[in-house]
Amino acid sequence: MTIDIIATLAAIVGTDHVIAPGPGMATYISEPRRRFHQTAAAVVRPGTVAEVQAIARWANEHGIGLIPQGGNTGLVGAQVPLRGDEVIVSLPRLDRVRSVDPAAGTITVEAGAILEHVHAAAEAEGMMFPLWLASQGSARIGGLLSSNAGGVNVLAYGNARELTMGVEAVLADGRLYQGLNALKKDNTGYDLKDLLVGAEGTLGIITAATLKLFPQPEDHETALVNVASPARAVELFQLLRERLGGRLTAFELVPALGLDMQLRHGMLDRDPTAGPSPWYALVEFSRMSGGDPGTLASAIEAAFTAALIDNAVLAESLADRTRMWAFREQMSEVQSKEGASVKHDVSVPVAAIPALIEQGSAAAEALAPGIRPVPFGHVGDGNIHFNFSQPVGADGKTFMAQFDEALHEAIYDVVLRLGGSVSAEHGIGQLKVDLLKRVKDPVALEMMRAIKAALDPKGILNPGKMLG
Amino acid sequence: MTIDIIATLAAIVGTDHVIAPGPGMATYISEPRRRFHQTAAAVVRPGTVAEVQAIARWANEHGIGLIPQGGNTGLVGAQVPLRGDEVIVSLPRLDRVRSVDPAAGTITVEAGAILEHVHAAAEAEGMMFPLWLASQGSARIGGLLSSNAGGVNVLAYGNARELTMGVEAVLADGRLYQGLNALKKDNTGYDLKDLLVGAEGTLGIITAATLKLFPQPEDHETALVNVASPARAVELFQLLRERLGGRLTAFELVPALGLDMQLRHGMLDRDPTAGPSPWYALVEFSRMSGGDPGTLASAIEAAFTAALIDNAVLAESLADRTRMWAFREQMSEVQSKEGASVKHDVSVPVAAIPALIEQGSAAAEALAPGIRPVPFGHVGDGNIHFNFSQPVGADGKTFMAQFDEALHEAIYDVVLRLGGSVSAEHGIGQLKVDLLKRVKDPVALEMMRAIKAALDPKGILNPGKMLG
Repeated sequence: MTIDIIATLAAIVGTDHVIAPGPGMATYISEPRRRFHQTAAAVVRPGTVAEVQAIARWANEHGIGLIPQGGNTGLVGAQVPLRGDEVIVSLPRLDRVRSVDPAAGTITVEAGAILEHVHAAAEAEGMMFPLWLASQGSARIGGLLSSNAGGVNVLAYGNARELTMGVEAVLADGRLYQGLNALKKDNTGYDLKDLLVGAEGTLGIITAATLKLFPQPEDHETALVNVASPARAVELFQLLRERLGGRLTAFELVPALGLDMQLRHGMLDRDPTAGPSPWYALVEFSRMSGGDPGTLASAIEAAFTAALIDNAVLAESLADRTRMWAFREQMSEVQSKEGASVKHDVSVPVAAIPALIEQGSAAAEALAPGIRPVPFGHVGDGNIHFNFSQPVGADGKTFMAQFDEALHEAIYDVVLRLGGSVSAEHGIGQLKVDLLKRVKDPVALEMMRAIKAALDPKGILNPGKMLG
Repeated sequence: MTIDIIATLAAIVGTDHVIAPGPGMATYISEPRRRFHQTAAAVVRPGTVAEVQAIARWANEHGIGLIPQGGNTGLVGAQVPLRGDEVIVSLPRLDRVRSVDPAAGTITVEAGAILEHVHAAAEAEGMMFPLWLASQGSARIGGLLSSNAGGVNVLAYGNARELTMGVEAVLADGRLYQGLNALKKDNTGYDLKDLLVGAEGTLGIITAATLKLFPQPEDHETALVNVASPARAVELFQLLRERLGGRLTAFELVPALGLDMQLRHGMLDRDPTAGPSPWYALVEFSRMSGGDPGTLASAIEAAFTAALIDNAVLAESLADRTRMWAFREQMSEVQSKEGASVKHDVSVPVAAIPALIEQGSAAAEALAPGIRPVPFGHVGDGNIHFNFSQPVGADGKTFMAQFDEALHEAIYDVVLRLGGSVSAEHGIGQLKVDLLKRVKDPVALEMMRAIKAALDPKGILNPGKMLG
């Protein structure tokens, strides 16, 4: 059977582009957090949309599971095998920029295009594609759309779904959905684009997308503001948003412990902040051409006047700005240097962020005395990466064995009580299948299952993911 | 059978809230453009979500078609009967504002709430709900969402879909989908909200929604700019958008003929423009608190300097602004005073607007010499209401009999060649069912039918609409 699969796939894409089980498959089946360990029946690397269609037709006929994979940067195991008998459809060869239209503000790219290359293609035409996240050097468009990726620019520009105007996708039986378009308004039927985006490859294999481009800002004004508490951070966010509207392009919260850790591990050449504070807000204003320099400074001035804050530092050079962003972007990495950690990608209504952090931290402390909460992230989106580092000196393995599950329970409990989501931007994949069944509106789950059965009756697309 | 229906519905909602066929039904079955003429088996006016559920359970059991109806302002016949045996589910009694949270920027309202009342509820809390269209005094939230309404603020704030965070809906069999939420990020499954929004009541009956609120602008700066051609208008739009970003909240194009007609019919107390011009652009900048007055003036100045325009007038009073907006808003109404008209609500990529207007006008003139093109609308959305008035002195009925169909063909032909949509904001309803079958990607239609069958297997929700 395995031989048949390999031979059949080779007949479709050529022997060079099929990988059989073995060491050559390693990079395709291991994922960033190394939680999931399962082989695949094969990896196939189609080079054209027609090849993806042929693979799906064949798989559908034989009931073989297909796992679409892009840059393999997903954090919930959606892009790696679950059972071991699936075929990974790896899309990096489908990486063309099909067209860029700066006047219309659109770019059409294939699923395998690396995000950074899409940035470059937009910039070459004087435009900007604002999806921006830590893995942009390897994450690819198909996966970014299938997981409805977020990142640091969601506040001003929206997540992957909002940045996508149309998609092209191969359906379970090989039919091609031709939904590419560059229209801002199109009320001709159900919103299939938004159904495919965020479906984690369970409803179709996205092969290309038309994405929105934006004018490049003339300049960025960036500051690190000392804030006394998450509640003060939310107030500051509201003041800045009122004054800066959609040009407030980032508002990120980081706790003092994050600074302390990064300085101790030599990850910052110097302290980027204005001085000690329990919390810091990284804020950025993107100035359009013709705008007045100093807009962020005067908005921060207003926050001083309102006695909302008492210290802040503005970036005065590109080096300052880079350091401030590094401070934010290195938050996830620094945790790995501090022993074991437990992570939650959650969201709540923006106004509930202070309650989330306070109640979640208290619940964790009650459970595991000495645990170190490191909540950080996108205040403007209500999206906190509610992470914890083990107590200093504790044994990592023992800590995880004892508290991992219980901490999840405790944090998700707080999140749900506050009307929040247990997966803000990372998705469900394999990691949160059981959790989803427990917390999601049962009617919503039934609707999802009905749609899945309607569009993929044999269940060959990313089987077992999201819906279980 | 009719008696059974009336009695059963009366048992659910009370006799006062059921209307049998006859004169009392008139306002429910006649629609704004008077194109569709069909009675209903009954009109039922539920007062609670539980009553809507009971109606659906009963209808699903007996295979009775249900037509959700809000303010009955739709322009494509989605909200009125097609066969004559359907029951209209009229939702105005479900009109509560369930909650407003200005800090979170959300409002939760029931389907029957009138748009203008939602505006008022938001303003009472110092916020703004930016969905704004001519029928806002009678259009209701459920219909606005089901038709994914657009309007004049889409440019800056998005259409109804983008303004909706979550919906609650009764499914075909009476189950309640509880998808209300106020989260900016929530990657826990398929995007059911966006599937229900714009589905024209064929997948569920929306009973409530959580909508996005925005800070109220401190002031509006409004201008009427003389533009030499649609191409110049697109260039002006791009210049303004680059300088004003998301604070450019309107960019509407109107032809000289529109001004001429309105002045002749006494619909304007005086000419709101800077003087004769083949085209006019109504542009508006919404200034946030702390912003500099005169931002629009200096952006227009830049357009002068770039020799893009040579005349413009800024509103200097609320009366000026009101007159400028009346000039734009009365475009549809004035056409009815000029004899027969043929209308198309279409969109193309923004950059293709000049080609659309040029090619569409030429095609119409070739077909019906003397015909008067009156294309106007939302340049920034690529959405033109491509309307035509009959030649001066022609007989309206003869004109329509001769040219109505052929004009549609000609215009949709141009639209499709330019990669556009045959329904930008009004939807499909009854009016464009056949057109949709002809022009839509056949795989998309198959996906839509599969989803419809999965969620409404007996086909009781708005039967025959959209999908035929």
